[in-house]
Order: sequence, then C-alpha cells, then structure tokens
Amino acid sequence: MDKHAQTGWFNKLVTRRSVLATSTVGLAVPAAMTLGAAAPSNTANAQQGVVKKVTIYAEDLPNSALGYGLEPGKATIPGPLLEIYEGDTLEITLVNRTNRRLSIHPHGVDYSTDSDGAPLNNSFNNPGETRVYTWRSREMSAAGGGSRRFLPGSAGYWHYHDHAAGTDHGTLGIAKGLYGGLIVRRRGDILPDKQFVAVFNEMSINNLIAPNTPIFEANLGQRVEFVAIGHGNQFHTFHLHAHRWADNRTGYLESPTDPTPSVDNKDLNPGSSFGFQVIAGEGVGPGAWMYHCHVQDHSERGMSGIFLVRNADGSMPPGAQEAIDRFKGHVHSAAATAEPVPLQAPATGFAPKPAEGHEHH
Amino acid sequence: MDKHAQTGWFNKLVTRRSVLATSTVGLAVPAAMTLGAAAPSNTANAQQGVVKKVTIYAEDLPNSALGYGLEPGKATIPGPLLEIYEGDTLEITLVNRTNRRLSIHPHGVDYSTDSDGAPLNNSFNNPGETRVYTWRSREMSAAGGGSRRFLPGSAGYWHYHDHAAGTDHGTLGIAKGLYGGLIVRRRGDILPDKQFVAVFNEMSINNLIAPNTPIFEANLGQRVEFVAIGHGNQFHTFHLHAHRWADNRTGYLESPTDPTPSVDNKDLNPGSSFGFQVIAGEGVGPGAWMYHCHVQDHSERGMSGIFLVRNADGSMPPGAQEAIDRFKGHVHSAAATAEPVPLQAPATGFAPKPAEGHEHH
Amino acid sequence: MDKHAQTGWFNKLVTRRSVLATSTVGLAVPAAMTLGAAAPSNTANAQQGVVKKVTIYAEDLPNSALGYGLEPGKATIPGPLLEIYEGDTLEITLVNRTNRRLSIHPHGVDYSTDSDGAPLNNSFNNPGETRVYTWRSREMSAAGGGSRRFLPGSAGYWHYHDHAAGTDHGTLGIAKGLYGGLIVRRRGDILPDKQFVAVFNEMSINNLIAPNTPIFEANLGQRVEFVAIGHGNQFHTFHLHAHRWADNRTGYLESPTDPTPSVDNKDLNPGSSFGFQVIAGEGVGPGAWMYHCHVQDHSERGMSGIFLVRNADGSMPPGAQEAIDRFKGHVHSAAATAEPVPLQAPATGFAPKPAEGHEHH
Repeated sequence: MDKHAQTGWFNKLVTRRSVLATSTVGLAVPAAMTLGAAAPSNTANAQQGVVKKVTIYAEDLPNSALGYGLEPGKATIPGPLLEIYEGDTLEITLVNRTNRRLSIHPHGVDYSTDSDGAPLNNSFNNPGETRVYTWRSREMSAAGGGSRRFLPGSAGYWHYHDHAAGTDHGTLGIAKGLYGGLIVRRRGDILPDKQFVAVFNEMSINNLIAPNTPIFEANLGQRVEFVAIGHGNQFHTFHLHAHRWADNRTGYLESPTDPTPSVDNKDLNPGSSFGFQVIAGEGVGPGAWMYHCHVQDHSERGMSGIFLVRNADGSMPPGAQEAIDRFKGHVHSAAATAEPVPLQAPATGFAPKPAEGHEHH
Repeated sequence: MDKHAQTGWFNKLVTRRSVLATSTVGLAVPAAMTLGAAAPSNTANAQQGVVKKVTIYAEDLPNSALGYGLEPGKATIPGPLLEIYEGDTLEITLVNRTNRRLSIHPHGVDYSTDSDGAPLNNSFNNPGETRVYTWRSREMSAAGGGSRRFLPGSAGYWHYHDHAAGTDHGTLGIAKGLYGGLIVRRRGDILPDKQFVAVFNEMSINNLIAPNTPIFEANLGQRVEFVAIGHGNQFHTFHLHAHRWADNRTGYLESPTDPTPSVDNKDLNPGSSFGFQVIAGEGVGPGAWMYHCHVQDHSERGMSGIFLVRNADGSMPPGAQEAIDRFKGHVHSAAATAEPVPLQAPATGFAPKPAEGHEHH
Repeated sequence: MDKHAQTGWFNKLVTRRSVLATSTVGLAVPAAMTLGAAAPSNTANAQQGVVKKVTIYAEDLPNSALGYGLEPGKATIPGPLLEIYEGDTLEITLVNRTNRRLSIHPHGVDYSTDSDGAPLNNSFNNPGETRVYTWRSREMSAAGGGSRRFLPGSAGYWHYHDHAAGTDHGTLGIAKGLYGGLIVRRRGDILPDKQFVAVFNEMSINNLIAPNTPIFEANLGQRVEFVAIGHGNQFHTFHLHAHRWADNRTGYLESPTDPTPSVDNKDLNPGSSFGFQVIAGEGVGPGAWMYHCHVQDHSERGMSGIFLVRNADGSMPPGAQEAIDRFKGHVHSAAATAEPVPLQAPATGFAPKPAEGHEHH
C-alpha cells in the first residue's frame, strides 16, 4: 500500500461518521501526515503520528440505557468505532450529558493515570462534566535484555468502555451500553470494505436480543471486518457460519508456515476482544448466514443474528429474505436453567445504528 | 509427502471404518478434478482434490440418546471421525432414521446455504428423510489487498453436529449425542498412529461420566492424535497429564523461533475444537495417565478419564491395572454447588465405540 | 546472553528465597553446570542440565488454609515460585506437616507415574509423610514423521498444585491454598527484574479478596514478569491496566512478522496459566494501575488489586498513595446474582508474602 493510497483512505475516513466524526475532528497534523510510512524498523518515521481530536457525548437512551455518540442526541450502542494507526494519539473530549458519574477507559493503548477512566485514579466525569482523555499508541520496539525480540506495538482490535458508572468497575455503565470498538492498525494492514461490531454483553448482542439483533449486511466478495467484544458476567463463544479466520492479530496467515490455527468459533469473555477480516461469501456464496453465541442456552435465549451476504450487485440472493423472515419470527425457548439472571434487561427500544455496519466509501 | 505416498495413505483409509466407511464410499473423483488451487509450495499435487461420498445414519440409541453412524444400527457417540485433505469435498448423504427433525452442520469447511444444516436456511432432514450435504475445503490463497498475507485454508481440527433437533440451534440433538470430529489436513501434515476424540458435552465426556468415560489406549512411542470438542452450556478446560503440545494448528512447533506457547490445559468451550499429536509416554514412560476437565467441580462430578500408555509391546506396565481398578471404583463427591443442572442426564447405556480409538493400520 | 552473565544470574538465584531456597538446596551439578549454554540447535549441550534439589513443606495456615513453603513454618499462598531451564531436573522432597493426605502435581514438565501426585497412581503423601517427586524437563526436538516440525520443549509459564487433599482431584487442597508457579525457561530468554504471581482461585486472588489483595510493586522501567494461574470452579479474565503483551510463549514478538496478537485481558480458567514480561510504566508513566478479573461481578466482589509503578528512584509518584488509600477503603457491592458460592471462603488472616514480589537481586 503506497502512501498515496493510504492518504486517500484517510481522507475518506473524514466522511465516515462511524469512525471519527468530521464535524468534531480537529486535525492536528494534516500537512505532515505520514500515515502510509514507517515500518517497525523505520525509526525515522516511528515517532510520527497524528493527533486526532474527537468529542464523544455520553447520553441517556430509552429504556434507561446509556450510550456514547459523536454528536449530541446521536448516541448508539455500541458507541462509535474508533480507529487509528500505531503512533497516533487520540484526544477524546468526553461530554457527560447524564446525571451519573461515568468515564471512558480504553484497552490496548497508552494513557497516564489521569486518563485511566478509573475512579481509583480519580479519573472520571461527574454528572454534566466535560473531561479530556488522551490515548497514545506506539509501534513495536526492541525488547532489549540481550534478545532480538520486540515489545509489541499498540496494533490490535481493542475496545473502550465506562469504568465509573454505578461502581468503581463501571459495571452499571457497561450493562447499560457504554462500550465500543477501538482499532489500532499497523501500517500496511489491509483495509476492509465494511466493518461490524458485535458486543456479547451479558445475555445480549449490542444490548439487543433476537430477533432484534443486528443484521450485518455485505455484498458477495466484499472484505468485511468483524470486531467482537465481550462484557458482563457470562462466558461466551462467538461463532460465524460458513466463514473462518486465522486466530491471530489480523485473521490472515502471515506466511505459508504461519502456525496459527483457523477458527470459526472463539471464546469471547468479559473484557476480551478480537477482530478479523473475511471475504463475504467466499467459497460458500451469498445467503443469510447465522452468527451466534455457541453456548446453547445463550443462542436459545436470543444471542444470535444474521450476516446477510447479498449478491455482488447488492440484490437479495434466493432464500435470504425467507431466512430473515424465519428469523424474525423466531420464538425462543424458555430454557429451564439455573443460569444467573442479567443485572439488567437488555434495552431494545432504540435503533441499533452501528449494527448496520460502517462502510469505507 | 509425494503424491504416491499420499495416495497410499488414502487407500489405507478405505479400510478404516472409523474414518470413512468402506462400504459406503463411492469414489467420485475422476480425472479432471481441480478443486484445489495451489498449495503454497507443493504445486504438483495442489490442484487435485477428491470427492468423498459417505452415507451417515442418524439413529436413536438407548436411554433416549441419538448418534451418527456409518452403517445402519451402528451409531456411536461421538459419531465417526471424518477426515479429508484441503481441497477435498465431502458429500454426505444423511439418512434420518429417527422420528425427529435433525441435521448435520460442520465447522471449518465451505458449504452453500442448502448444506448449512440450520433451520434458518431450511436445511435439515425431516423424520425419516434422506438429504445430501456437501462440504468443500480449500487451500490457503493470497489475501489480496496489496499484502503478502494469506487467507487461511480449511486445515484444522474441526467438528460437526446437529443444528435442528428440538430447536433451531440443535440444542437437543447435541445434548443427546449428535456430534463428531472432522479433520481437514494440510498436505505434508504428520499422520498419527492412533486417534481419539473427546467431547466435553455439558457435564460429560462423550456423553459418559466417570468411571464409564473412555479409556484411550496406545503403546509407548505411538504418535497419538487427540481431537477435543466442546458442547453444551458449561465452560471447560481439557487437561492431559504428563503430555503437552504447542497451542497452534498442529501441536508442533513450526520452527525453533515459533512463538507458540506450550499447554497441557486448554479452554474447551461450546462450539470450539482443537487437536494435537503427542508421542505416547515420551519422557514420562508408560502408565495410566489422567485426562480431565480441570474445573474442579466438573472433574469431581465425573469429567475425567484415562489415557492408558501401554508398554511398547502392548503389555500392561506395572501399576496401570491397579490405577484403572482404582478409577473404576471411583466415587464422586456430591459437591454442594449452585452449578446449573445439565438439560439432560448423560446417557451411559451404550458402548462408547470411538472411545477405543481409531487406528491407522 | 553469554555464559558468564547467565551463571552470574544463577548464583544470585541462590540468594532468592522466592525461587529456590538456599538452605534447602543441595546442588547436584555444580562443576558441570552449563546453564548458559545450549540453544535448541546446539545439540552438543542439549542433553545437559542440572539437578536441583529442593525441600518443600506443606503446612496448615491460619483460617484452615494450607500452603507450601521452603522452610518449616514459612508456608505462603501461593507457594514458592520455582524456576528452571529446559533440560534441568527438579527433585522435590515434599514434607507433609499436616494431618491430611496431599501431594504436589506439576504442569508442563515430565514425571513418571510415581511422581504424578495423583491418587490414581498412588502418588501422594500420607499425613506426616515425606516423599520425593521428580520433575524433568527437556528442550525441543525433531517431530519426525517426515516433517521439519518440532516437538515443543518444556519451556513455559506453568504451575503446580495439590492433587490429593480431600478428593482424588485435590479440590480441597487447591481451595485452601496448595498451589504455586513454575517457570521453565528456554536458554536465551530474557530475565526479569521482578516477578509476581497472581492466582485467580475461585473468587479470590491468591486466596485474598480486595482490599487485601496483593499490591505488586516495581519501579518505572523495571522489567516485570507476571505469572497468572487459574484455579477453582469459575471462569475468569485477567486484565492489567495500561500495559499489554504478546499472547505467546514469552509476551514479546519474536520478529516483526510474528502474527501474535497483543492482549491486556486474557482468559484465566482453572488449570491454565500464562506469563509475560512488561516494562513497568513504559509509555504510561508511574502510578497505581489496577489489575483485576474483568468478569464484572468478580471484580465487584473483590478480584482486583494494584500494580504500583513507583518512580524510577523508588519514590511514590503523585496520586499513587491516594489511589491506594481509595482502594483500601473500597466497599464491594453485594451483587444480587445466582453465582455459585465458593466451596470455601478465601482465607485472609495470613501475610501474603509472595504478593510483595520476587526480586532478581
């Protein structure tokens, strides 16, 4: 990927409200932008990165849910998918428009104690308060110690969430919907055509249960990126029908001798996240493909959804609408188990915006 | 592995009822088959793949269990271990000899919506119905996107299971025993001397609880392949005494700098599977070695069994029979926990055929 | 790392009671010691290793807890962190100073049935009994089978635990504190400045609950090694704030193309263990950083602690003492869940010695 293509992609990003909202982004380093450069060994560029400024609004949603959004009145569950390159800094102005204490705590990136988002470090927004959180990222670097190994950089499929609502652990904020995806890319990583975020939160997917769970849509052959995040008190496994990926950083094999196993079912437990890319329908064709928690009782209770692979021209493939209709009429078993009851019933009264996917136009 | 050796091994397969039953295999693969595209290195054989046809019978078993088998009246739990090479196609004629709706759904391979095995796609066998499911596989291929990465092929330790009995998620069918192992090998992979399949299904191993769980037998020095599969509603960890493996696709390190960690205890949650090979008794000698779920309450309740490593000549090593006798007299604690009760009591009244292992003669 | 440096480090080990106690170690191979030699490809030295003899005392602790220690009356929870190089042998004389049957069972290393530590193999200490357990280790070796792959060596972040107290599975012994860490290093691995062991045992960390959980202390820039171990009946995820690691054998990337993902949250289920090294405070600065189980209800109930990164000179950074004070006053929610109750309340009446960390002086 050359510098030009990279920059071109970034410019498109500016029009993607799902990644970093245009109106609220104050670009700090437009002229010197070198996003397409700098391999790990390229120390000349390694220190360079952009500072992206974004304002996030934490808000009340219907059914006593909470959400993060990039504009006032536009909060969603999950919150906006944030995306940077290794070396970049995200400066987040969090506006708390609720009457609760809350915060934003990231995984995978660097932050000082005052951006921890944890009450332990006195890092949170009081009701109505605005506060800036700074997340930094970095490229891999020599591990030292006489070895040739490397300290990993920040690249990864990460996430962010509240760490202060209700208790010092953010349990209430997370239960109510204060979470979202965070991608830190390494330069040279393949960019997707579409992106979907699935958060297995307690007994819900994005705080929704079937048949109201997201229908993720792509066209046959599109490169689709899934970001999967776990939250709550239950253990889960994320299963996708008819597609699989390498269980490593990117979902691709790095070389023919890469020992990474392939999976189509992966543990997705609280605080964990992973991501991968697949070519929609490759080798299997278009159709309505299930994704679901493979814990039987969880899928029975509504932790399932549809990955709709349309024909290459965007039209509906045969049988897909019937499958969706079948799914929408899905009746869940009232399984007689001793499973713990979620702390809070999943909210279902608001539009699952991000469920429709983020497109790289 | 050259083409001749490969073919030789396949021929042996035909005599292994545990893999693909002789009587029901009709070799299709004519001259012009070009299913596979390009193995990374072995281009000479890479273009070839076979179509293997197999008939599987889904049947009722004692104690209201269900099983898959390769011949009428011969169903087992788990069902037959199926095995192909990347590029091969499995054409499965599923004969439903029960009065329930059921299906067969694979992990890891390619299939069109009509072979999904999911009621969502109207893909199942009604009572008494026969239906063909086609599973395709492929080798790794270039990932595109300007990168040198690869989309992974189908190689892996996978599994198959019902997706239609009782509910749209196959919960009842899986609970009753409709599951089995599926191996897709990459050309050049090491072949084992013996194979064992252990399915941690709800609170059972292969729907059996100790002391009726499988005793997996091998001789000192034999190359043994384990396939471990998780099902049900519980989380589990698979632990094997005195043996360990690299936590990657094969269980071996690919090179001296392969960063894969070694494990002897691995998460085995619903819908997940993994496999590995070990040299029986290497470095530790023969004996009766435990394998068990390491969740304490689960091992207490009967999720443990024995990996019996005999002497190289097949005779019993000192102490092994005493250990087995001790195990057979094992009394389980009635642990006072709030653990959810399995949906269905494990069936124990039928012979655990596959537990005796599959030999590569 | 040259031989001299290596040997120097080993000599320091002799003064580290946390690894192998001086007074109880009978060095078996002083003259021929070759700890600094032998890479995997160095077959000349590959067969060489030292025999380390250590006496471990299993003892009663206050609040009906149990612990392992290197001297009589000095048992701790977790027990001593044991550490060897691939090729070494650990000969453990276990002195049972309790009136219970108990044993010591390792993960990751080689042992004959009589050192299994399992009642299945009649391998345990009766009350008051002394018994020798021998653990061997090895380097990687050719996998055979016509491949260029390798059987993994013993290197890893492992652990040991009772397998005989109460039941044949050691459930009672583990619940009461009979567990500890075991590191097998590959020659050339980077050595840490400090080491911490965190055992997520049932609903405790090292059988302690917050605010009595360990405060792990290091200075900014020190290379810190964490060993994380899971035990009991619950699933857990280990999360560390502001630090992350490669999810492989060492926690470092092996090369710029190493496909290993980075994590800061990892499943830590019963019987599993992992380890990694981080540079304390790198990229984030000093401070009181939380580590905790990310299962929300578990952190609420006390499965959290502090990784205190002091200034480089050992002084307290601004805000850290306040954070600790806040933590010590932490009140836990009485979450209304149906979560199973631990078999035994965590013991809190004894000093968590290893919590203070093991230093490589």
